[in-house]
Amino acid sequence: MTLDATHDPDLKSWVESADGHPEWPIQNLPLGVFSTAGKGARIGTAIGEKILDLRAIAERGLIEDEDVAEALRSRVLNALFALGADAMADLRARLSVLLSDEAHRAEVEPHLVAMDATEMQLPTHVGDYTDFYVGIHHATNVGKVFRPDNPLLPNYKYVPIGYHGRASSIRVSGHPLVRPSGQVKAPDAEVPVRRPSARLDYELEMAIWIGEGNALGEPIPIEEAGQHIAGYGLLNDWSARDLQGWEYQPLGPFLAKNFLSTVSPWVITPQALAPFMKPMKPRPDGDPAPLPYLTGGEEKCALGVRLEVLLTTAKMREAGEAPYRLSKGEADAAMYWSAQQVVTHHASNGCNLQPGDLLGTGTLSMADEDGFGSLLELSKAGKQPIALPNGETRTFLEDGDEVTLVARCEADGAVPIGFGKCAGQVLPARG
Amino acid sequence: MTLDATHDPDLKSWVESADGHPEWPIQNLPLGVFSTAGKGARIGTAIGEKILDLRAIAERGLIEDEDVAEALRSRVLNALFALGADAMADLRARLSVLLSDEAHRAEVEPHLVAMDATEMQLPTHVGDYTDFYVGIHHATNVGKVFRPDNPLLPNYKYVPIGYHGRASSIRVSGHPLVRPSGQVKAPDAEVPVRRPSARLDYELEMAIWIGEGNALGEPIPIEEAGQHIAGYGLLNDWSARDLQGWEYQPLGPFLAKNFLSTVSPWVITPQALAPFMKPMKPRPDGDPAPLPYLTGGEEKCALGVRLEVLLTTAKMREAGEAPYRLSKGEADAAMYWSAQQVVTHHASNGCNLQPGDLLGTGTLSMADEDGFGSLLELSKAGKQPIALPNGETRTFLEDGDEVTLVARCEADGAVPIGFGKCAGQVLPARG
Repeated sequence: MTLDATHDPDLKSWVESADGHPEWPIQNLPLGVFSTAGKGARIGTAIGEKILDLRAIAERGLIEDEDVAEALRSRVLNALFALGADAMADLRARLSVLLSDEAHRAEVEPHLVAMDATEMQLPTHVGDYTDFYVGIHHATNVGKVFRPDNPLLPNYKYVPIGYHGRASSIRVSGHPLVRPSGQVKAPDAEVPVRRPSARLDYELEMAIWIGEGNALGEPIPIEEAGQHIAGYGLLNDWSARDLQGWEYQPLGPFLAKNFLSTVSPWVITPQALAPFMKPMKPRPDGDPAPLPYLTGGEEKCALGVRLEVLLTTAKMREAGEAPYRLSKGEADAAMYWSAQQVVTHHASNGCNLQPGDLLGTGTLSMADEDGFGSLLELSKAGKQPIALPNGETRTFLEDGDEVTLVARCEADGAVPIGFGKCAGQVLPARG
Repeated sequence: MTLDATHDPDLKSWVESADGHPEWPIQNLPLGVFSTAGKGARIGTAIGEKILDLRAIAERGLIEDEDVAEALRSRVLNALFALGADAMADLRARLSVLLSDEAHRAEVEPHLVAMDATEMQLPTHVGDYTDFYVGIHHATNVGKVFRPDNPLLPNYKYVPIGYHGRASSIRVSGHPLVRPSGQVKAPDAEVPVRRPSARLDYELEMAIWIGEGNALGEPIPIEEAGQHIAGYGLLNDWSARDLQGWEYQPLGPFLAKNFLSTVSPWVITPQALAPFMKPMKPRPDGDPAPLPYLTGGEEKCALGVRLEVLLTTAKMREAGEAPYRLSKGEADAAMYWSAQQVVTHHASNGCNLQPGDLLGTGTLSMADEDGFGSLLELSKAGKQPIALPNGETRTFLEDGDEVTLVARCEADGAVPIGFGKCAGQVLPARG
């Protein structure tokens, strides 16, 4: 990914609110799907406090590429993602010109919508959702609970561990979470009971959106993996730890996870992230090198993305208090495997990825406690409650709690960009 | 499910080949999607050696229910399944009349297509695919490999264990299987290598197709679970045992399974199966009762379906020899949990099932060796090769091998019906 005119820090949009906007300056240009009262879902890009209706722009003939223009008439991003990385880079370049060149203002401005008058939708129809486990500190922290002397399993440093998740229950930021019920068995109980989860947790993850797919039976070489990534976002992999503990052997988590997964609505493209990408950190001494099929490819494939998790309890909300930051960290410091390695591994047996598929990185915890990406880790599996500034404490989530994931990129010589938020509030279990 | 005029053993179709047909007499009337040269995919029902084009029948105005007629114009069965069990039962009753009453012959007969001039397609767009583990003998056999004294984990008799599979790589019977490559680590090796799987296996399963869905957050009571099942089929959950052994801890099988799963093309409806359903066998003495949410519902929910696995090697094919039967058994003897229990469990945390979703039962092995549902079990994890009649032996699948699953229902006073086949041939790994 090379820098070009769209990354120029001096580039300004004629949309006044874009200049200096903490998330949506003209250097970002994320893709998403929005709706307004009385009108169906449409594809748009965020610019300052506005959303540009890309369907309208395409219908006005302002997008020359006919395939791209046709894809922009869809109500989801799958068709656009299917066109591949070059088409998406061309679209970005065109939007950058349309939104910066005063000459286009008259024809483009009527198609801006105030962001606060819109409702965001899921960006794609998710055909398949796969969740990985690339956060090595998380894997270590969770492993310590079961195997204090040997927290990481022998395969971890060879295999980018992943498993299939549920596509039907993925929702966009803002969708409430009904506390799930399920089978739990206390360590000292003879038999399990079905009841509302008492150990409800969040997991801080990044979302990887698949662009162009691969045919069944045809792996994706590591050198081409980046071309199959349409963009990134935030993902909250809500988890019911008590259901998980009882059900997960021998085939992995199931009902502990599939009641809801929340994604942020905007897809931040690889082009937008280019100024913030870094080389992967060298592996610690003594770690094995990845096998050849996972070696090579783009040099800068580590995500220089700053992450935060915010909590607002019902009491805090009533008192008008600001959210409490539960943790902060950087994606590249947490990820033992890159997004490219994950994509190549997923397709290495011939499994076909499809445009709009969702991959989760797995929980991104830092090495230090102030960057742990779940309550399971922060509260030491519920043994050490977290003290909140207003005197409340938490081991796991309580009804009324709202968890918000946010992310931001900053780098010397680049205009900072944001990811928007990935939020959800816990509602009481049903009857 | 009650018996009605559509089950009458004396009922005959005016389609000559239907009378006494081993799979597709008028008492079956399965639903599927077929195509013919030059024409797109259409919904049909099998009758003798013919397929009735249900799109054409609907367009001729022979289906009164407007929603059903509209759903029959689709290229997949999802919309029809969404209409629910009553609508599907009405459709069956109507088709039974159209195909038995001579008065309808003139208007219906032009829409029959010779089965051997068609190609079958996937019956639905599969939104999500979940694989269960209800075959208790299989779970025990596999568990014995790891824990000889305690093969079943403590949760097995309380939790219908399941995990998410890959929807994108599901293909219909006949699609070839390219031998997958992946990471394998020999027990005495220091490090893994990537190579073609040397322990490629099949798994004999039944497919459960979801009909009407449930809303996110709303469980399906066990009494209503049967209303959410659109039908049944056969499923081969191809498995690479060497990949599985190295990758599956701690989150379950992934690349060992998601390179291909094969389903039979015809959906056998609950109505067609009604004469063959049985009460679940009482649990063995000492086993716990299911928790209340999994107790009750329809009395006859055990699938009285006879299953067979057939193998044809390349040598057998060249010599024109008949397939060799690797195993035979009955679904109801293998299933510790019913299809209804599996559906209710899946939705018990609020997870939303959608019309056209696919559930697999898990491998259906009998208690005895001649009914084991995988080569892993038949060959004792590769230690005891199976001798074939032509002098060949097998531990796992070799290139050129074709595995075919078939099923059939027989009961006193009922016309026997079949399921069609679920077949796939192994092709060599790619370069």
